[in-house]
Amino acid sequence: MDFIKSTIQNKHALNDNADNVRAVFYISDGTAITSETIGRSMLTRFPNVPFEVYVIPYVDSIEKADKAVQQINFLYQKTGMMPLVFDTIVDDKIREHINQATAFNLDIYEGLIGKIADELQVAPAPHTVNAHGDVDSEVYKERIDAVHFALDNDDGARTHHYAAADIILVGVSRSGKTPTSLYLALQFGIRAANYPLTEDDLYENTLPKALQPYKDKLFGLVIDIDRLVKIREERRAGSRYASYQQCQQELRAIQGIYISQGIPNIDVSTMSIEEIATRILQMTGLKRRIG
Amino acid sequence: MDFIKSTIQNKHALNDNADNVRAVFYISDGTAITSETIGRSMLTRFPNVPFEVYVIPYVDSIEKADKAVQQINFLYQKTGMMPLVFDTIVDDKIREHINQATAFNLDIYEGLIGKIADELQVAPAPHTVNAHGDVDSEVYKERIDAVHFALDNDDGARTHHYAAADIILVGVSRSGKTPTSLYLALQFGIRAANYPLTEDDLYENTLPKALQPYKDKLFGLVIDIDRLVKIREERRAGSRYASYQQCQQELRAIQGIYISQGIPNIDVSTMSIEEIATRILQMTGLKRRIG
Repeated sequence: MDFIKSTIQNKHALNDNADNVRAVFYISDGTAITSETIGRSMLTRFPNVPFEVYVIPYVDSIEKADKAVQQINFLYQKTGMMPLVFDTIVDDKIREHINQATAFNLDIYEGLIGKIADELQVAPAPHTVNAHGDVDSEVYKERIDAVHFALDNDDGARTHHYAAADIILVGVSRSGKTPTSLYLALQFGIRAANYPLTEDDLYENTLPKALQPYKDKLFGLVIDIDRLVKIREERRAGSRYASYQQCQQELRAIQGIYISQGIPNIDVSTMSIEEIATRILQMTGLKRRIG
Repeated sequence: MDFIKSTIQNKHALNDNADNVRAVFYISDGTAITSETIGRSMLTRFPNVPFEVYVIPYVDSIEKADKAVQQINFLYQKTGMMPLVFDTIVDDKIREHINQATAFNLDIYEGLIGKIADELQVAPAPHTVNAHGDVDSEVYKERIDAVHFALDNDDGARTHHYAAADIILVGVSRSGKTPTSLYLALQFGIRAANYPLTEDDLYENTLPKALQPYKDKLFGLVIDIDRLVKIREERRAGSRYASYQQCQQELRAIQGIYISQGIPNIDVSTMSIEEIATRILQMTGLKRRIG
């Protein structure tokens, strides 16, 4: 059938009975990213239940809804358990078709849009397909410019654009600067440069010249030593770069710089990229350019 | 107060009465990204109502809840309109405090977790703070590796890793290849390279040598001419690169290559990055590495 392949949520909970996994469907008339975000978030409360995840975006016609229903019913037959269905389809007729599947239906928006309309005293508009809203050319431009800014100013590659940076992330190699910069760009339109503090910088116990004029824009990432060793080992197994001693020296030195220079910093060892980005916004008060 | 600064949703709907804008709060004990995703998605149904958006993440104590309540009440006083509050706080006691604000409260999870628990016949676990789940080191590694793969193989920079690519995006300069590659990496752990088809490639009317062994991995982005001219103008105003004639020639030539080589492709002109990525997964059947 014509949909995105399945993946497993809570893989660690799979046992020998792997054929008998409850199916979950994230269905939408758009990308289904919202529906999936909501559903996954709720299912984190059931960490010991494995789920086979099916994402069906762009269900914007009765025919596509009926195809989805076939698939849901097929999984019900196969597993003997009603699939969970999270849908954010707005069109009532299409949703009614989805509701005919043999499934446990969690209609997320049911009623809520109506309640909001009552409170606002404004009738809801027909569904706009693009929930992400960056076709709006101003938002699109901010977002793309931020992505290119992050790329051009990744890993200390160039330093002469730092005046235009919203923030400059610093940290030892492999502490998460690059993905965080890119996430800040894509999600918030924030122009984030990043600069790795290497051995040479660290043993000077002062800021590299390129960073000195922009001290107010610096934000430090901290990572615990075991995690850093593990990440570096995956990259260059057995190297001096990945050794415990080397990691320890770098981490001690960078902590010294953060303290002596008064650079705000957070320990990202147990954080997802989303969490790191959110904490940074919260701690710095940095304003988003989009959203 | 101590929270992320406000932004405006539906900015175009702002009028002279800019002081009198309805406040919306996205509140969570985690990053509040889920709460915001859900809320924004619902409010797209009210495109002519401007909202002043406040995001308050990490409300994980009664003290923080009471601070948020003060803020909500302050906005109620200021605007004379009840703020909308979307919250995904799991702890009942903390949520009860939030509910005491003078606000229109949309408790998204209310009841739903309980219903799921009944269907699964499994008691919900206490809230796990990390809804994004990539502290799980396997997921983290896939994600970071994919980001670094996208960076290393951006813009045709290197071509000798294409055997390891899940997909290779092609298109003219500024058709959206780079942000799409990065989004595929961050969101789905997919290793996406991208290669710009430049004038030289295009006028040969054949695939560049580096791409020929990987024809099955190619996916083409198409963009309409007016949008391309606009985007290139913003980059290099008045240049030949941004001229209508140049854009037209490149777009015609690339369409010829897509057809003659049988490369699947989509017109991304009116799509957000999320939509491009989702459509690509749907059309190619490419399997996510995470999620």
